Amino acid sequence: MDTLGFWVGIVATIAFAVTGVLAIADRGVDLFGVLVLGIITAIGGGTVRDLILGAPIFWAEFPVYVWVALGASIFTFVAESFFSQPQIYRWMLYIDGFGAALFAIQGADKAWNLHFGYPVAPVILGVITAIGGGLLRDILAGRKTLLMSHELYAIPVTLGCIMYILILNFLPLYVYEGSIVCMLSIFGLRVAAIYWDLRVPGIFITKRR
Amino acid sequence: MDTLGFWVGIVATIAFAVTGVLAIADRGVDLFGVLVLGIITAIGGGTVRDLILGAPIFWAEFPVYVWVALGASIFTFVAESFFSQPQIYRWMLYIDGFGAALFAIQGADKAWNLHFGYPVAPVILGVITAIGGGLLRDILAGRKTLLMSHELYAIPVTLGCIMYILILNFLPLYVYEGSIVCMLSIFGLRVAAIYWDLRVPGIFITKRR
Amino acid sequence: MDTLGFWVGIVATIAFAVTGVLAIADRGVDLFGVLVLGIITAIGGGTVRDLILGAPIFWAEFPVYVWVALGASIFTFVAESFFSQPQIYRWMLYIDGFGAALFAIQGADKAWNLHFGYPVAPVILGVITAIGGGLLRDILAGRKTLLMSHELYAIPVTLGCIMYILILNFLPLYVYEGSIVCMLSIFGLRVAAIYWDLRVPGIFITKRR
Repeated sequence: MDTLGFWVGIVATIAFAVTGVLAIADRGVDLFGVLVLGIITAIGGGTVRDLILGAPIFWAEFPVYVWVALGASIFTFVAESFFSQPQIYRWMLYIDGFGAALFAIQGADKAWNLHFGYPVAPVILGVITAIGGGLLRDILAGRKTLLMSHELYAIPVTLGCIMYILILNFLPLYVYEGSIVCMLSIFGLRVAAIYWDLRVPGIFITKRR
Repeated sequence: MDTLGFWVGIVATIAFAVTGVLAIADRGVDLFGVLVLGIITAIGGGTVRDLILGAPIFWAEFPVYVWVALGASIFTFVAESFFSQPQIYRWMLYIDGFGAALFAIQGADKAWNLHFGYPVAPVILGVITAIGGGLLRDILAGRKTLLMSHELYAIPVTLGCIMYILILNFLPLYVYEGSIVCMLSIFGLRVAAIYWDLRVPGIFITKRR
Repeated sequence: MDTLGFWVGIVATIAFAVTGVLAIADRGVDLFGVLVLGIITAIGGGTVRDLILGAPIFWAEFPVYVWVALGASIFTFVAESFFSQPQIYRWMLYIDGFGAALFAIQGADKAWNLHFGYPVAPVILGVITAIGGGLLRDILAGRKTLLMSHELYAIPVTLGCIMYILILNFLPLYVYEGSIVCMLSIFGLRVAAIYWDLRVPGIFITKRR
């Protein structure tokens, strides 16, 4: 992992831990639950990715990710009333979108480099890296998961991963530029979804009976 | 994997994706959620089995299973009103029972051939292969899982796996015929349970307080 | 694994299966669900630990743990009215606390000996070994998990694991005595929490909105 990637990963980890804690704070969770769920939100997706890849779990090699997630979770618990302000919370969601963009492309890239069942598996593993931690948190906290919420979150992540795999396949000379473009696409779509409160249109939703 | 096994596996994958999508469609899921949950229903059990076995995940080697699950899920989303007709849905349940029978014996067989903790572990892994995907789907969709529903689903699967392991152990010369008999037993019990709407008798259920 | 550790592990497995079944019995579960959820409570935490460690799953090597969990679950199903008596149930909770203490230190020790991402990862894996099975059971049974319940369960376990890792790091000559002290600390805190019905104080709980 290069130095830039490492530091960007740290920022994304902080963002995931903070939004992970804020998402459950209104349910009356104790400090220990907050720490566990904050850490799981931040490193859960990458953990599932590494399990499926059969690769060593990333936080065994870089325990700093756990420390960072732990610190961010404690800080969010203490400063929850600050972070819960609508304006600050919205900023956190933007940073969270940036984290999702980064983790998705990192995850897809890792699977691709390990020649893991391309072309379809790297997309799946990119998506798992980005949303897996949030899914685990919601399951453990008894919340409705992202998959049932009609949020425009997983769709931008998936489109970005597909785009990145197409670039890796057909434009291998432009992988570096391509990865930036794919991340910005995911991030841009997330920003738009947060800013205009966009949701999945009804025609793409099954009828509730 | 032999050619017959491959094609039968494809049919089972389609059946699992279709019934997986139908099971959650009435909760108002968006297209993306449908695709994810359809794919998870179809390939989730085998994924958990391979993780526990420490074997390479099957869909990394045969990505076609993901494509098939994806296609079947999209098709079910589009044609949901067709599949939801009681008569058609019942046919889907029969095919799903066939899929469960196949996946269970395949899973037990894979664990046995890897000498994985016999005699008890191959039975567990056969059951996980058959019902694990459905459990993951229900957890992610916030539904009551199979384990709490008193359906006659996991019990036939488990009996079939036990029977198959007994045959592998005591009648190794008749493994091929035995695998067919075990699959037909699971399938037959499922068909009977669907046809007569059989459920677990009350004497085997703890008292609700 | 030494002989003493093996037998103590058997006792802990029985305790986890019994309390695992009792925790869900009041929801009207059928015998098959009871067996699956009892086994998962008893061996689920160690399974997740071994998956993350990339180590062979312990019950593939020692299937006796599955048999013991199976037997204890059947026995609890049959004798549920006996175990549900408040006085007996409390004794089961004490034994469960002993099991948690043992599994936590065993799990942390296993991760430490595999040089798995110390110092933070062995603590995480000790906690997962002790509470992972109960979390899986609660998710599959649709119950509120331990993380949301303000019970003093995971906190003693975590403190004991931290203490044990500190001893492994700074007092390597006293590991054996240290492991006993750490287990007794976890067990003692659990006994106190059960006896006086202690819970996480409100100041460590986020406001429910």
